[in-house]
Amino acid sequence: MQRHTGRDMWDVEECASPRMGSVILGVDGGASNTVCVCIPAAMPFNDPLPVLSRTIAGCSNQNSVGGNSIWTHFKDQNYFCTKDRARETLERVMSQALLKARRRRSNVCAVCLAVAGVNHPIDQQRILDWLREIFPSHVKLFVENDAVAALASGTMGKLHGCVLIAGTGTIAYGFTSDGREARAAGAGPVLGDWGSGYGISAQAMTAVVRAYDGRGPETVLTNNILDFLGLASPDELIGWTYEDQSWARIADLLPVVVESAESGDEVANKILHNSVGELASSVKAVVQRLELGGEDGKHSFPLVMVGKVLEANKRWDIGKEVIDCVTKNYPGAYPIHPKVEPAVGAALLAWNAIASELDGDIRNVQ
Amino acid sequence: MQRHTGRDMWDVEECASPRMGSVILGVDGGASNTVCVCIPAAMPFNDPLPVLSRTIAGCSNQNSVGGNSIWTHFKDQNYFCTKDRARETLERVMSQALLKARRRRSNVCAVCLAVAGVNHPIDQQRILDWLREIFPSHVKLFVENDAVAALASGTMGKLHGCVLIAGTGTIAYGFTSDGREARAAGAGPVLGDWGSGYGISAQAMTAVVRAYDGRGPETVLTNNILDFLGLASPDELIGWTYEDQSWARIADLLPVVVESAESGDEVANKILHNSVGELASSVKAVVQRLELGGEDGKHSFPLVMVGKVLEANKRWDIGKEVIDCVTKNYPGAYPIHPKVEPAVGAALLAWNAIASELDGDIRNVQ
Repeated sequence: MQRHTGRDMWDVEECASPRMGSVILGVDGGASNTVCVCIPAAMPFNDPLPVLSRTIAGCSNQNSVGGNSIWTHFKDQNYFCTKDRARETLERVMSQALLKARRRRSNVCAVCLAVAGVNHPIDQQRILDWLREIFPSHVKLFVENDAVAALASGTMGKLHGCVLIAGTGTIAYGFTSDGREARAAGAGPVLGDWGSGYGISAQAMTAVVRAYDGRGPETVLTNNILDFLGLASPDELIGWTYEDQSWARIADLLPVVVESAESGDEVANKILHNSVGELASSVKAVVQRLELGGEDGKHSFPLVMVGKVLEANKRWDIGKEVIDCVTKNYPGAYPIHPKVEPAVGAALLAWNAIASELDGDIRNVQ
Repeated sequence: MQRHTGRDMWDVEECASPRMGSVILGVDGGASNTVCVCIPAAMPFNDPLPVLSRTIAGCSNQNSVGGNSIWTHFKDQNYFCTKDRARETLERVMSQALLKARRRRSNVCAVCLAVAGVNHPIDQQRILDWLREIFPSHVKLFVENDAVAALASGTMGKLHGCVLIAGTGTIAYGFTSDGREARAAGAGPVLGDWGSGYGISAQAMTAVVRAYDGRGPETVLTNNILDFLGLASPDELIGWTYEDQSWARIADLLPVVVESAESGDEVANKILHNSVGELASSVKAVVQRLELGGEDGKHSFPLVMVGKVLEANKRWDIGKEVIDCVTKNYPGAYPIHPKVEPAVGAALLAWNAIASELDGDIRNVQ
């Protein structure tokens, strides 16, 4: 087989058997790590999905959340990383997934790479060009925003409906059956993603500072956040905040805010209600632009809910409140909490695109 | 004269005459540059103040705004700087000011160093220790938060009243005649300084993204901000924002927001009215805690207004609106727009402290 890159990591494929079946690789290049899954290209699928292998590597170093692609900046809040480093991470995670599944590159019929912040055709093309250096021309290649893979993880690869992601950051992304798409939010912490884990936590910390200054009401958030962080006073909270401005580190305060709200704290409750409004407004903006609810707003469409802010493991259930808020306007929205991870969503997306190739309904194929 | 540090920069003082009078050095270690002034210790002062010399150096590298001191972190959003580098900058600016004023270190009777973010006694002591290595024991040394020097710049060195600073960041700081002090805001962009230049600009950019998403009303801010930055679409605004997260760079959009409000844009007007409320609430929190308005709230006290957000050079006069808002509750507040810069305020603060030494009313003297 022709070696498309000179990298040693592909040497591993020499051990694999060439006689086994075709596979699809799905990659989720997230903010804190990079996951690759290998699934069979044969269909139909059983439940649970037959994931042949799963590998994980470190961060592929995009800007933490909702920001720009690794392909344009490679800059994290805390450190810099070269484009080569990110590429090497992604390449390693794919070669190891093939090794674990006992497949070679010649078994791969499609690859879908879902990367945070890939919004621009230039970003997509750059990654497609690079993937083409690794995989021969008959392999179908797809490069998508990570939100698209998250949608696919809830719809078994079909690009129709709306996904709401709310983890460290937040974004709403939607597709119509005829391929139109729209997004809302996802512009990061500086540009008002207040419904995100970061946004909720930053509002809670702000409430602590305001109460301390005498500009805002007293709140149990003060004791709860200081205890959680092991700090003695709100003055120290300022130091803690700017010591290391990783957005994920701030978003980790989310459970403290939820617990404070559950204990009846008015300030914490107001912050969570506000975040529900923000998240629902992102979904509604996408649904309205794409007319996912049809002319009367009552048509049925999937609403895929992803991320720790939306996980229904608390009495104060942010995800449920968002759904209630959306279905008031769009009663046909049916919520889906995906059973599979975004990397599987990416693989399913490639699988679905191949399946519908005969209809000419293919997105971003090189 | 004993050389207290081995640094060559103090060699310059050999050229100065030892026979000239005593002087005071005032240093303002701001976010973008470091200014030192040299004033005579003799009193009373004339108007205008007899500033003997003024020197300026680069940023002494504290975190951009309201964050932590150079003495604890030395970390900027965009680059790192060693403690030695910051110290060298401050030392150079002082030695050059003495050279320009034709004075030696032996002429110095007091030094006041005002540095952004010095809030903690540990920060103060560390800088005092370092200054003591440079200046002999009879020299009075003062280390203050930059807000204190800003107050002094409006009150001719007297620490009484409230100062509101609103530039890239914002803070309100107040003192009573008997030495009690209080502050509000100044916690930086992550912790809700929404009345600052950064806060106003970030809200304006957020409004652009919301209008584009369909989550908020249309606004002329979209065209005005994109034109100002030379960008083609709000998508590019996201890229611009995270390309370089200097807070000052974002705060530079302030004039665009003010112009948009002056043209009648409702969204821009709402942002500015909100910032007025935020800034006034910081002042009122300080005034209330210190009872600067006395028991009936009607006593007279100075309200020193500093920073580009509060400059009265526009039809939409944020500073005037803040004053109107404060005087509704505290009619005795009399606004002062300082005629001298914060470095002179620092020098006046040292001068005033020496003058009141006999009363035992001295702050932070080593």
